[in-house]
Amino acid sequence: MSQRILRVGMLGCGTVGAAVARLLAEHRDDIERRAGCRLELTRVAVRDRAAPRDVPLDAAAFTDEPMTVLDDPGIDIVCELIGGAEPAGSLILAAFERDKPVVTANKDLLASRGQELFDAAEAKGLDLYFEAAVGGGIPLIRPLKESLSGERLRRLIGIVNGTTNFILTRMSEDGQAFADALGQAQSLGYAEADPTADVDGHDAAAKCAILASIAFNARVTGSDVYREGIRSISTEDIEFARRLGYVVKLLAIAELGQDERIAARVHPAMIPASHPLAAVRDANNAVFVEGPRIGELMFYGRGAGGDATATAVVGDLVSVARNLLSGARGVGCTCFHERTIRPMEEMTGQYYILLRVEDRPGVLAEIASVFARSDVSIKSVWQEGTGDDAQLVFITHRAREGPFQRSVDALRELPAVDEVRSVLRVEAEE
Amino acid sequence: MSQRILRVGMLGCGTVGAAVARLLAEHRDDIERRAGCRLELTRVAVRDRAAPRDVPLDAAAFTDEPMTVLDDPGIDIVCELIGGAEPAGSLILAAFERDKPVVTANKDLLASRGQELFDAAEAKGLDLYFEAAVGGGIPLIRPLKESLSGERLRRLIGIVNGTTNFILTRMSEDGQAFADALGQAQSLGYAEADPTADVDGHDAAAKCAILASIAFNARVTGSDVYREGIRSISTEDIEFARRLGYVVKLLAIAELGQDERIAARVHPAMIPASHPLAAVRDANNAVFVEGPRIGELMFYGRGAGGDATATAVVGDLVSVARNLLSGARGVGCTCFHERTIRPMEEMTGQYYILLRVEDRPGVLAEIASVFARSDVSIKSVWQEGTGDDAQLVFITHRAREGPFQRSVDALRELPAVDEVRSVLRVEAEE
Repeated sequence: MSQRILRVGMLGCGTVGAAVARLLAEHRDDIERRAGCRLELTRVAVRDRAAPRDVPLDAAAFTDEPMTVLDDPGIDIVCELIGGAEPAGSLILAAFERDKPVVTANKDLLASRGQELFDAAEAKGLDLYFEAAVGGGIPLIRPLKESLSGERLRRLIGIVNGTTNFILTRMSEDGQAFADALGQAQSLGYAEADPTADVDGHDAAAKCAILASIAFNARVTGSDVYREGIRSISTEDIEFARRLGYVVKLLAIAELGQDERIAARVHPAMIPASHPLAAVRDANNAVFVEGPRIGELMFYGRGAGGDATATAVVGDLVSVARNLLSGARGVGCTCFHERTIRPMEEMTGQYYILLRVEDRPGVLAEIASVFARSDVSIKSVWQEGTGDDAQLVFITHRAREGPFQRSVDALRELPAVDEVRSVLRVEAEE
Repeated sequence: MSQRILRVGMLGCGTVGAAVARLLAEHRDDIERRAGCRLELTRVAVRDRAAPRDVPLDAAAFTDEPMTVLDDPGIDIVCELIGGAEPAGSLILAAFERDKPVVTANKDLLASRGQELFDAAEAKGLDLYFEAAVGGGIPLIRPLKESLSGERLRRLIGIVNGTTNFILTRMSEDGQAFADALGQAQSLGYAEADPTADVDGHDAAAKCAILASIAFNARVTGSDVYREGIRSISTEDIEFARRLGYVVKLLAIAELGQDERIAARVHPAMIPASHPLAAVRDANNAVFVEGPRIGELMFYGRGAGGDATATAVVGDLVSVARNLLSGARGVGCTCFHERTIRPMEEMTGQYYILLRVEDRPGVLAEIASVFARSDVSIKSVWQEGTGDDAQLVFITHRAREGPFQRSVDALRELPAVDEVRSVLRVEAEE
């Protein structure tokens, strides 16, 4: 075997970082064969040096000063696993200034400041790898960037947040309310104490932006992605979905239209129970990508977890090490095109709408005429309950988002409608 | 954009080759951005220069002398799409002798002479890429070789032959007999006039060998793979499978045992109807890979077709071009380990067995005692018909292949058994 050694400095040592440290030690020989050199983790920056950690490293390897890791001339590759915007962003830029390539799992940073980071890497001719940022251990970034470089992808649709998928699975299968399912996710470690990033769709929107940027070769940021979370999903919605043959999932969808504009959105949606994404349960993730030549591809697996995510980080470290040894660079930024974002208002889609209505003759006709005025065509309607409990469920044909939303506003004003209880998109059907 | 041009010489111009030629022309600018240089297809070797082809190339680009393509000093990269053992093997070796890297889709050659080809590439420091050899356009080789280089994979199970999956889908969904479904596959262009390579499992065995070699970092050849085809699958088997909650699929399975030996096999099997592979219909392919850290990953898509396969070839051409420009090499042979193959006799599995039997008291006891003598435990038994038409269906618990096969031989000798009509493995259950 080679005598060459490359040294890794790690920023952050939480669940993923500790798993990376163990993996580098346990698979040392395999990794050496694959990288063509030994990969040694020698420096780790942490917030609290005294915290107990299950990692095979001497206490001397730890520091609470991340800059000392970057300034260490013995460090060849920086692995950023702190997460969040700052100080992670400044530290990655500082690594590039010191001519060190970076492997990161930081989806927020890539989705908000991807261009800045890639420009800095490009200026120095350095690698920036980030397979672990989306889909945990599922290979997505490299297949999209490299294996599919012969295709022009047009669409991607997927489940990219394990926490919300776990919550929706529990609500669907056990009839739990949102708050109970969230509590269970928290007690199992799937959800943070502050679940905002997951349940309000921020995490999925960042991942959607990253995937769309790569799939369509144009920069899409997290703020370009229309976003709705799952807090308002009720057991009633889940139950109506089930009866109508649907399952409710939080989807990330990105499309490159015929007009070459990009539409990117994250929202809960009903999908047919027969759709493969309907079968993606618990904390699993799955992403479909579509192109005219390739047809439909799916990538499926655990979307999170320290060990799975760590394999993606180590795969990147191996590639970066190989590149360093051969004096080459991997594929850098592939956002060759400038594309504009299509506003949500111009989207077309199908919708489910649940109304509490007055129970008297003529109500259906009044509501139907509101839809008709907005050119929203009804696919099916279902009445449930009587008296104060009278409810109407509509599924529309494809309609434009703008006019549909205006028809919902008009329904709210209609005396016959006591309450618009729920509006959900229907995907993957018409 | 760059002014640099790299020239591709193609050997063979069938369905995939013609699609590659069109893709290189139609996506010329995108490919230039991704490769960092123009990729021009300038020479194509074909058997019959006069045959009509839908490719954007002058007649002067074609030759019926493949060596003139290899000898052309203007050719930088060779793309081998002839298929089969010879002359493809000699031509690839000749390309390496002339210092030209190779992209190929030739599964048979890789599965039979992979070591020889990789050694030749290695000796010259050249790339040998082959994403298109398995799973058409589904990214499999690069994710397994590179993205998952941090994991030790233990198992893969998949549907890797589109033709047989189409035939089995038609048999299951339309009740067609094997011969009729094969005829339909032939008339739709999914099956060759001589369907041996597909229906007898040779194609799937070659792909299984390639995937196992990469997943377990040890050379596995096509002849190491136990192989059964689907010719003997009857509509009766399909129907019993359906009634028992199974679907019949031709599976490729490779495992790295606790003893570090590799077991690799291709055979039809019943899998639970709820298993994700059961939902893989028609000519689609899907591969699950499993490892202790990564859990279970699935890759799904069209397993064949000129356009889908061509995207894989072009993705490889882009990578090889990038490597040439930077003076680097991609990941070469990753068969670092010597591992032995576990004989089929030592496998354990579940089985389905369909017997025509005498309709009299005591028959079940006689048969059960044959199984018991071989330590084969019965999970469920089902009797159907009476008199001359009496049949018994057994599903076993996990048993060893050797003793099970000996118990089947003993049943054939049993006077109470008129006929062993069918024996099938049951996978993905216990």
